[in-house]
Amino acid sequence: MQRLIWTIIAAFAMSLVFGPIIVPWLKKLKFGQTIYDLGPQSHKKKQGTPTMGGLIFAIPAIIASIAFAYNDSRFDFLLIVLVSALGFGLIGFVDDFIKVKLHRSLGLTPKQKLIPQIVIALGLSLWAYFHPLIGSSLTVPFLNVEWDLGWFYIPVMMFVLVGTVNSANLLDGLDGLCGGCSLFDFATMALIGVALAAANPDNASNLLNVAIFSGAMAGALMGFLRYNSYPARVFMGDVGSFFIGGALMGTVLVTRLSLLLPIIALAMFVSSLSDIIQFAYFRATHGKRIFKMAPLHHHFELSGMPETKVVTMYYIVTVCLCLISLLGFVA
Amino acid sequence: MQRLIWTIIAAFAMSLVFGPIIVPWLKKLKFGQTIYDLGPQSHKKKQGTPTMGGLIFAIPAIIASIAFAYNDSRFDFLLIVLVSALGFGLIGFVDDFIKVKLHRSLGLTPKQKLIPQIVIALGLSLWAYFHPLIGSSLTVPFLNVEWDLGWFYIPVMMFVLVGTVNSANLLDGLDGLCGGCSLFDFATMALIGVALAAANPDNASNLLNVAIFSGAMAGALMGFLRYNSYPARVFMGDVGSFFIGGALMGTVLVTRLSLLLPIIALAMFVSSLSDIIQFAYFRATHGKRIFKMAPLHHHFELSGMPETKVVTMYYIVTVCLCLISLLGFVA
Repeated sequence: MQRLIWTIIAAFAMSLVFGPIIVPWLKKLKFGQTIYDLGPQSHKKKQGTPTMGGLIFAIPAIIASIAFAYNDSRFDFLLIVLVSALGFGLIGFVDDFIKVKLHRSLGLTPKQKLIPQIVIALGLSLWAYFHPLIGSSLTVPFLNVEWDLGWFYIPVMMFVLVGTVNSANLLDGLDGLCGGCSLFDFATMALIGVALAAANPDNASNLLNVAIFSGAMAGALMGFLRYNSYPARVFMGDVGSFFIGGALMGTVLVTRLSLLLPIIALAMFVSSLSDIIQFAYFRATHGKRIFKMAPLHHHFELSGMPETKVVTMYYIVTVCLCLISLLGFVA
Repeated sequence: MQRLIWTIIAAFAMSLVFGPIIVPWLKKLKFGQTIYDLGPQSHKKKQGTPTMGGLIFAIPAIIASIAFAYNDSRFDFLLIVLVSALGFGLIGFVDDFIKVKLHRSLGLTPKQKLIPQIVIALGLSLWAYFHPLIGSSLTVPFLNVEWDLGWFYIPVMMFVLVGTVNSANLLDGLDGLCGGCSLFDFATMALIGVALAAANPDNASNLLNVAIFSGAMAGALMGFLRYNSYPARVFMGDVGSFFIGGALMGTVLVTRLSLLLPIIALAMFVSSLSDIIQFAYFRATHGKRIFKMAPLHHHFELSGMPETKVVTMYYIVTVCLCLISLLGFVA
């Protein structure tokens, strides 16, 4: 646990130091966010805030997790998690970069984003499927039952991977929202990693490395929130949200805890779900809307809730759900 | 740990439900805060926000901690903590009530507040001093050394008690500031309580009850922040900040961890210290100020930092210090 705490503190300190270095640099390179035309009117004032701030937490999280990882025996789990985070993060980086260079709100086309995402998701699913310590089973939370999906595991996990990464992206719509909610998710995964390591001494170092990585993410995100909390001085950009989605998926992939996602990552889940419902309803009714705006956080905002209040609400619901999910792992 | 998590969730749920019941009631009774004339100009808009919101977390914290407490053997530690929280909270309640009834910014005179505080502090110090499981020693953090103050313990603890309670009150100057920072303090004390209970099986139920109480406070404050985060719909008032100060002091009193306060409660500490420095400097220089305004959080605000940014900064510094203090209690 001391090692975990030091990881959190180190990642936090690094991102805190990175912020004032990266933010002016992003501003100078004109990495200002071109605010999405279809967002709420009140967001127009956010025009010009630099994006790609995800680098502020991504780099410290990678450095801290590698520096503090247990490398006495196996290193595979950390490797899978890092590949997932970096793979998806890279797609986001390319997307952000194109947005900035061409000065338009949309970077890569949906198809240009989706294809590399599917490729990475396929690779990760196969890697997990054939990994002797992961395989095709998912743990059912609270029941401690293993649910073996067989070869079906591969398409299911691909869907979950791509879905989660894009949900993290959709959640990134208000200052501090995606960063804060995922901070609690990673803190939870860190504690779960420690609990699983205690219960599985054979695979302890692998599982502790998941805890170390999650702790590094939580610490780095804490430092990032210093700059991203309302009023944000920097946005995480697609590089940030895809990295978060990939990182979170990596941790649940290796721990077989994907079924925990609808609980701890409910905020991401409802963002996607509200978007899909809005779209389907709009199509079915030829133009009617069920939410004032999707994803759901914009609906709350347009219903008259201040942005900061929506974020607080998402935070405390997430913390509560994370506490509930911890009930399945502690005595 | 499961019991602790359930306590947090129960207190959280209760305060979440209490909020919408108490806020309109406080408004109807005209418990609007008369904003302190000497505060920053930008705070004028806060006029009319109901105060005494501390009841939103104080009542659920008391109920949840009593409901979930281990009463298989000793109950003393929880009793001391509850007396401390309720004793100081009551002074705050009287102060708030007078403010509201007389429609003036200052309630009780400083002397009228200080005398009952000193009386409660004396009672608690004597109780702890003569308690067979507490006594006149303080634990020095990280060194695991006991520092026996002898009879000197009584005046020292009286000073620390009165000082901390008033520091909590001074910290309560920005939306979500005192509630959030102390939430992290209580979460830390909950984890420390669990760690101490594991290390002292003879006194486990007493120490676990400290954890239960701290967890109840953390959960209840989380619910309270739903209403108190920027832009606040309710202020905690003196009843809230004195209750928090008394509750926190109760937990460190029974665990002999008062020396941890400058670390986990640094935010409170610097609030008092900046006030004292400002006053001393003002007197010594016949009218010069060292801070733009004291306590320190107003100085940051007047230096151009948005209110929400100051609060985030205080939060992340507090979390980091809490993590550091946990290093002394985990393997």
